Amino acid sequence: MTTLKNDLLLRTARGEKTERTPVWLMRQAGRILPEYRAVRSSLSGFKELVETPERAAEVTIQPVDILDVDAAIIFSDILVIPEAMGLTYEMVEKKGPLFRSTISSKADLSKIRVSDSSELAYVYEAIKLTVKELDGRVPLIGFAGAPFTIFCYMVEGSGSKTFSKARAMLYAEPELANELMQMITDSTIAYLKGQVEVGANLLQIFDSWASVLNPEIYKSFALPYMKQITDALMGSVPITVFAKGANFSIGDLAQLECNTIGLDWNVPVEFAKGQSHGKTLQGNLDPAVLYSSGKDIVKHTKTMMAAFGNHPHIANLGHGVYPDMKPDAVRTFINTVKEYRHE
Amino acid sequence: MTTLKNDLLLRTARGEKTERTPVWLMRQAGRILPEYRAVRSSLSGFKELVETPERAAEVTIQPVDILDVDAAIIFSDILVIPEAMGLTYEMVEKKGPLFRSTISSKADLSKIRVSDSSELAYVYEAIKLTVKELDGRVPLIGFAGAPFTIFCYMVEGSGSKTFSKARAMLYAEPELANELMQMITDSTIAYLKGQVEVGANLLQIFDSWASVLNPEIYKSFALPYMKQITDALMGSVPITVFAKGANFSIGDLAQLECNTIGLDWNVPVEFAKGQSHGKTLQGNLDPAVLYSSGKDIVKHTKTMMAAFGNHPHIANLGHGVYPDMKPDAVRTFINTVKEYRHE
Repeated sequence: MTTLKNDLLLRTARGEKTERTPVWLMRQAGRILPEYRAVRSSLSGFKELVETPERAAEVTIQPVDILDVDAAIIFSDILVIPEAMGLTYEMVEKKGPLFRSTISSKADLSKIRVSDSSELAYVYEAIKLTVKELDGRVPLIGFAGAPFTIFCYMVEGSGSKTFSKARAMLYAEPELANELMQMITDSTIAYLKGQVEVGANLLQIFDSWASVLNPEIYKSFALPYMKQITDALMGSVPITVFAKGANFSIGDLAQLECNTIGLDWNVPVEFAKGQSHGKTLQGNLDPAVLYSSGKDIVKHTKTMMAAFGNHPHIANLGHGVYPDMKPDAVRTFINTVKEYRHE
Repeated sequence: MTTLKNDLLLRTARGEKTERTPVWLMRQAGRILPEYRAVRSSLSGFKELVETPERAAEVTIQPVDILDVDAAIIFSDILVIPEAMGLTYEMVEKKGPLFRSTISSKADLSKIRVSDSSELAYVYEAIKLTVKELDGRVPLIGFAGAPFTIFCYMVEGSGSKTFSKARAMLYAEPELANELMQMITDSTIAYLKGQVEVGANLLQIFDSWASVLNPEIYKSFALPYMKQITDALMGSVPITVFAKGANFSIGDLAQLECNTIGLDWNVPVEFAKGQSHGKTLQGNLDPAVLYSSGKDIVKHTKTMMAAFGNHPHIANLGHGVYPDMKPDAVRTFINTVKEYRHE
């Protein structure tokens, strides 16, 4: 195994005091970079890029070369799991993912299966290639969607403002809902274990739609499956959980066998610290700050850094960087974090 | 002026102890009722319904007759304000509002004007007809969008997951953003004063997209305009503010000259009480509960009622009722609230 030259991310995730705060960005490998757009336009679409290991590895490494971030995150999609389970999707330009077939009854469960991740060899191949080409420069982050978020897509079939179909199932057919959640969870555990085996140095679990549940239902319905995942992966690599918008569940998330809790830009840092049980926090600059002038980006970034203070902290935005943001604005954010020293 | 036979809503809003908790639902006049759908299908579209006072009054009163709620809310749309200011919109079936023209530069401000609400005579006419036909059975709620939410639509042109254009303007061109906010605010004050003059008994201000801002920016950028509105209306009728998702701003909202704070279903009731400065709270059952069995609706509703306890409380869902919900489920919720007595 290659020794990492820059392991700031991993040490910070483990709660160690480091010489400076590590920084990376969600969606750093993507449309913000002209180099990414060049690769993307040479292919038929987003899914071809995800499924072509050489190109996925290439765009994964771009932000390390171009932006000098402290971590790479494998270029992929959380929806590879429902696809591996038997529900294929299309990525519709400007609209997002669309599943032609969804789960709405017990009978529908026979259309899908628990994936042992053999269908996801292309992701593993991309991870192997990336690790080789990174050659220890920075850690590689692997990831998956949290069971509840994947559940939302498999029931709803696409993005939604309310995910009312998914939430309806949870209240109206809890048994069916739990059966589907378990199938997703089993598939996700196999998938994440595989990512670690081929070289992922840290895993992040994205619960992008956590905010549609209230904290009690999130705790009783969604978290037990998240716990199965963190328990199963415990002791392998550091784990980050990011449940966007579920800010009143931070205290519950902090009880999981995870190392880091991701924060969106809505939650006051002080509140999150109080709920963190001392775990590392990741985030949480308002992405829209990167639309402002360089001077203002520096100012807002420093304010954020000061708010985290000496709490173990991985700097990031509170959400993925927006596609129309300028690489120079992103660089200003990154450099401000790197130069910042706590008093 | 007609004396109200049922003024539970108003007394509770003023913090008085009442014989039972009043209850109504956001979007109660709408697609959940077959009677509404019959009216709607006889017209060319949503906007024709909004703009035809007789029909708007008719659907406003339907839920009072059919569901026996403790308040009517005038059937209208928050986007009548941008339209009165000069930006017309279409309501695209299944997609939501679409503005062909948006505000993105100083020059664009010349396309719009501050409305003195003369363009909104059709809403006033609908309110007058409703008040007359209600004949004092229950109070009538008037409403408007909060300046920030209207700003989001005028800049973005449609709904959006991130409202990144609107947020970009706030960071990149704060002067332009503030100028637009002031124009919206002035128009909204005139509009709401007019609603009170023609008979609205309570006003609710909806900040539907408050959650895209973090609490500091919400406080420094959005709240001063909300404050102008509540200050201008102070002493007329009780005012409710509902800033969906801005749960870390409840303490700031409670400082406004408002009577009631609306809550979504994500915020724990205990947390909201602690931030409320004793103001009346409205909400906050998870709307998806209405997809469950009658027994479970009763159970969840009682749990919610117990959580509010003796704090002044107007029962509602934490968001508008979803169009595919059954009137019987809604009735079960309403009746459970009406029969509930605090120990």
